[in-house]
Amino acid sequence: APAALTHQSRYESTTPVLDLQHYISQDQTGNRSAYGPLGTELKRNILRQWWASVVESKSEVFSVSTPHCSTGGGAAKLVDRGTLDELRDLPEGQLKERLSRLLYHSHDLRSSLLQGALLQYIPSLMLMNRKLPFGLAETGFCYRPETASPNTIGCGSSEVTEASLVWFCSPRTSSQWLDYWARQRLQWWRKFASGPSEFSVCDVLSEELRDGVSRGVKVLYQFPSGPETLETLWRLGDAELLKSHQGSQAELQCKDGRKQVVPHVLSISADMDRGVLAYLFNSLQIVQKVDSKQMLHQRKVLKLHPTLAPVKVALDMGRGSTSELRQVCEGLLQDLLEAGISAWPGYTDTTQSSLDSLHTKYDEMGVLFTVMISESTLENGLLLVRNRDTTIRETMHISEIRQFLLKYISAAENI
Amino acid sequence: APAALTHQSRYESTTPVLDLQHYISQDQTGNRSAYGPLGTELKRNILRQWWASVVESKSEVFSVSTPHCSTGGGAAKLVDRGTLDELRDLPEGQLKERLSRLLYHSHDLRSSLLQGALLQYIPSLMLMNRKLPFGLAETGFCYRPETASPNTIGCGSSEVTEASLVWFCSPRTSSQWLDYWARQRLQWWRKFASGPSEFSVCDVLSEELRDGVSRGVKVLYQFPSGPETLETLWRLGDAELLKSHQGSQAELQCKDGRKQVVPHVLSISADMDRGVLAYLFNSLQIVQKVDSKQMLHQRKVLKLHPTLAPVKVALDMGRGSTSELRQVCEGLLQDLLEAGISAWPGYTDTTQSSLDSLHTKYDEMGVLFTVMISESTLENGLLLVRNRDTTIRETMHISEIRQFLLKYISAAENI
Repeated sequence: APAALTHQSRYESTTPVLDLQHYISQDQTGNRSAYGPLGTELKRNILRQWWASVVESKSEVFSVSTPHCSTGGGAAKLVDRGTLDELRDLPEGQLKERLSRLLYHSHDLRSSLLQGALLQYIPSLMLMNRKLPFGLAETGFCYRPETASPNTIGCGSSEVTEASLVWFCSPRTSSQWLDYWARQRLQWWRKFASGPSEFSVCDVLSEELRDGVSRGVKVLYQFPSGPETLETLWRLGDAELLKSHQGSQAELQCKDGRKQVVPHVLSISADMDRGVLAYLFNSLQIVQKVDSKQMLHQRKVLKLHPTLAPVKVALDMGRGSTSELRQVCEGLLQDLLEAGISAWPGYTDTTQSSLDSLHTKYDEMGVLFTVMISESTLENGLLLVRNRDTTIRETMHISEIRQFLLKYISAAENI
Repeated sequence: APAALTHQSRYESTTPVLDLQHYISQDQTGNRSAYGPLGTELKRNILRQWWASVVESKSEVFSVSTPHCSTGGGAAKLVDRGTLDELRDLPEGQLKERLSRLLYHSHDLRSSLLQGALLQYIPSLMLMNRKLPFGLAETGFCYRPETASPNTIGCGSSEVTEASLVWFCSPRTSSQWLDYWARQRLQWWRKFASGPSEFSVCDVLSEELRDGVSRGVKVLYQFPSGPETLETLWRLGDAELLKSHQGSQAELQCKDGRKQVVPHVLSISADMDRGVLAYLFNSLQIVQKVDSKQMLHQRKVLKLHPTLAPVKVALDMGRGSTSELRQVCEGLLQDLLEAGISAWPGYTDTTQSSLDSLHTKYDEMGVLFTVMISESTLENGLLLVRNRDTTIRETMHISEIRQFLLKYISAAENI
């Protein structure tokens, strides 16, 4: 047997190279230009977990769905193409006046989800019977042309998927609530991390707080290029809520014990695109191996958390009658998909490849388990199951694999 | 006992009034201005079911995440607010030239998800090993100022949540695939309907097809104001794909048996905001009751499909020691939320109301079950469970309710 030396190291590079083609596609200049199919699934899984943690598990948090376009507040104006064409045909003298009118009347594209949620405060009061605290949650697209960071994805880095919770609570307790949510949010980010210490929180210095914000906390991720903010938590007081409301102040009041108060607002907002990058960097490990000829081999393993991994299991064929094995694979695939387990039909790829290159490919994709269906499966129902993280291969009966995967994933969720 | 006459009728009004405050909020002019919390959840549930049916249950469909802003193709330009302000300060002579440049360089907001998916075709080929058929799916916000219909929600009716599947298949089979998907999609819409016959499909007349479309099918819903399109299925040929691609045609080719072909494209796209309205109209029933004094009472029951209903169960307190009952309610609520069952904490509402007015409120919210926790629950663990659709009340042990609800919902899903 060759004397092999195995060395694992967390991904530590000074340049933020993240060459994972099915996750993030890169254009010629090396910019991360778009999500690949697996990157999209990863982002969906992250958003789903955020939603489960912030909304579904809490009876006092409601979802809202606010307009993308509104009057005022955004960084970009939406101008009808036809209107712009008309402008060009105008005589110079009328141009300026028309341009002013256009500016005044045209809609803004939202740059955050906070304003929309504040407008939903009054309609939500009825539902909540004016009881504090409660929260309004939304995830969605925001447009922020000012965002500049090496850790962004796509389209001039101005498109952001924000996950926002706006929390309304008694003025007496708003500072405790900020602490509560900061703890909760850090815990959540770390839950899915393979290197939890790279996620941290810090208080925002009071001289850096913008007007009307009395306290701020940030959740940071230590990217190879330096720390960056994943999520911000602001304690806003009642000023923004009062400003967003036209009617009398009494309409805003809630019960706080026996008193009537205008609630204080916490705005908790995460940049989920940067979150995707954080988890990718955090879970990417480089495995080095020196073979018998003293050659160094490097392999990327994307150790995404079982809940976040876009593909839970890949199905492949070993030796044996192709058509019979294929039938087994197809049956198993359907069975897994119906159970909600995302499965990869590796068996449809008929180009010959060694077992080693197959594992290399799947490890880079972050696939949790590779199932090998071969002649012996036809004889006795047994198949080989390889674990991404331990690289150990176990024999298992085909009737057990579905339950095994469901248990493995739910066990990882409940840690 | 009073001689009561009960008459149920499907909601049939000539004017499209849909006064469901927690679902859709209306402004003073009667326009549907925004989603309420329950409307947002309903929309989420519909989108989740679409995704489960179109993406998760099919190994050949991948998700993509395409930019909201792109160069060309949209109906509206995105112009930086600062740039517009600068324009106003320019001398008249320079204005025109700067305006032209601005028009040329600024991004468009997408009006459909098709173009983005076509650009993801080549990156997806690697993953699919050039095997047909496969699909690219996405749900998201599109901006369509031209949309004009009474059956829209919010913001000048120009914001649409689209659910899009772009299907790449062999030119030989593209017409069969269109039939397949039209059948699938109609089945899907009807699966969650309480009046399935109000959903239908029709072929688009060939003279109504736009250039490059060789066949079209529409899924319609019969709104009170008339039929409207929920979803369109277009057979596009290969023209759009070729147009979206800069390089050589060979790069687009896929395996079709032993031949290499440029695939044909089907574009299947649903307007999910209109879908929300369709399901609301479809499931709203007016129950009329004449009491002993010959007075007519009307009650709204929102008979949403168990999978779609935003609130599965409401928990309320009957007579008994408030603090003890409250503890039981809170424990049960947590238990249900942890099992992923959306539960309503009705017990926190301490305003006195009769059982009848409670049921009236929950029926209008579409709450599937109302659970009443009372003194006897403290004694023997029994509670009363009322079914929205049958109005029958059953006694059940508190330890059974969670499993009962999970079974009820999953049984409805698998019909």
